[in-house]
Amino acid sequence: MSFGTRLLSRVSQVGSPTCIGLDPHLSRLPLDAAGGRASAAAAAEAFCCGVIEAVAEHVAAVKPQVAFFEALGSPGVAALERVVSTAREAGLLVVLDAKRGDIGSTAEAYAHATLDDDGPMGADSVTLSPYLGAESLAPFARRLETGKGLFLLVRTSNPGSGLWQGSPDGGIASQVASWIASANASAERFGSVGAVLGATLEGEVETWRQRMPRAWFLVPGFGAQGAGPREIRRHFHHDGTGALVVSARGVLFPKSGRDGADWQQQVGGRARALVDAVGAALG
Amino acid sequence: MSFGTRLLSRVSQVGSPTCIGLDPHLSRLPLDAAGGRASAAAAAEAFCCGVIEAVAEHVAAVKPQVAFFEALGSPGVAALERVVSTAREAGLLVVLDAKRGDIGSTAEAYAHATLDDDGPMGADSVTLSPYLGAESLAPFARRLETGKGLFLLVRTSNPGSGLWQGSPDGGIASQVASWIASANASAERFGSVGAVLGATLEGEVETWRQRMPRAWFLVPGFGAQGAGPREIRRHFHHDGTGALVVSARGVLFPKSGRDGADWQQQVGGRARALVDAVGAALG
Repeated sequence: MSFGTRLLSRVSQVGSPTCIGLDPHLSRLPLDAAGGRASAAAAAEAFCCGVIEAVAEHVAAVKPQVAFFEALGSPGVAALERVVSTAREAGLLVVLDAKRGDIGSTAEAYAHATLDDDGPMGADSVTLSPYLGAESLAPFARRLETGKGLFLLVRTSNPGSGLWQGSPDGGIASQVASWIASANASAERFGSVGAVLGATLEGEVETWRQRMPRAWFLVPGFGAQGAGPREIRRHFHHDGTGALVVSARGVLFPKSGRDGADWQQQVGGRARALVDAVGAALG
Repeated sequence: MSFGTRLLSRVSQVGSPTCIGLDPHLSRLPLDAAGGRASAAAAAEAFCCGVIEAVAEHVAAVKPQVAFFEALGSPGVAALERVVSTAREAGLLVVLDAKRGDIGSTAEAYAHATLDDDGPMGADSVTLSPYLGAESLAPFARRLETGKGLFLLVRTSNPGSGLWQGSPDGGIASQVASWIASANASAERFGSVGAVLGATLEGEVETWRQRMPRAWFLVPGFGAQGAGPREIRRHFHHDGTGALVVSARGVLFPKSGRDGADWQQQVGGRARALVDAVGAALG
């Protein structure tokens, strides 16, 4: 089954198009992470696996942020490998947030590293940064037929991004959108190449939605980055399909301070609140 | 001392603006890499450390390609950490070819992971993919004052890249070039923010050189990707400074087959041939 269809099926199964970002900020973990990288990696792993257990029945997917694990060196990368397999065993789809991008044999190595089931991560999907052009996507696109998915950066909502990325009328974002639309053209409902599209893009989202009708939109920044229900409604089709709303810090950590011993319960509660808020936004 | 000045001094010391790409393609290693990821990682590490020993007195820098190590999982990442420190101990400057790019606390985590001396890699410089805009560069730019350097993707020479990246007249490449020029504006000769600029960009290189007079150009593709002396001459200023020419496969591996037991000697010989070819190109 294709990734696009697997995601549709999983969203329907849990009844919510939501994804929890796994960003183990060491300073905010409810677990002791003192004593060097190996023990910090163990704490990050224990936290992420606890989050997975708490959210698995509520949300469709998790999005581990590779950077936080790489900052812990090779023990962090080993922890990430186990977090990915724990999430998959719990039935969650895994979006590995790696924003990789290169060409030729290097891109092939990244595709193997992130997606292949006989590779170290074996995630369901990966985020890519398409600066290097269409050739850079080919090795990843070859994994689509094995049920894997891609999310390409298109337009993000950080303040300076538009100047560099362009708009639906031109620039690299417009080129990437055309590539995505074309890659998904033969899909019945949703293809396996999605788009990363910022939550707060006033006046542009509807156009991107029309240009990539069969693409899943990965929408970061719900809650924490100031996006509310009104903003994210536009990323979806009228029938409420087509986008996956991501929340990380808003679910992982309380607004101030740290959770106590009941942290897993607190994370589960905040995940349910996210599911309710997104559900309300979709009517 | 700033990275831009350190690189100038190192190039002058060895008398050659050359860099060896460390791309340990498993199938081409002159060492046995059978038996799972841990033994493959050990072979990749032994090979790269042998290459470092063979080239350290001839070239200015090495450029480990992160993807090949990540494809070997956490043992590969541990091997890369040791390869980077071996290269630095040998006096080589290290350009970590990671093409990272993200924003906010994630970009901060990548900057720590790749550049900080108390982080896992502690490279001298890192390649970045600037799709996410100027904000994505800020956490890396904060490392410039600790003597670290950046190389931002500007224009690459793979066939489809121009359509997405633009030209000196407009598009994301032009925006990135402006950012680089501005970041280097106060440097006496060369600043610490370089540009990745493909070797075979007919008719554009002179313009990029004028737009970024104080930027080091990192020029991949000498030899293997069809670029010869005529192409790379344009990346340099008239006095022969300002670019770092990269060769990977052309030095690491023989044109056909594999090296035998004398592989380290062969690698050293090919590195000297690279140095001679680049020297001849610069007259």
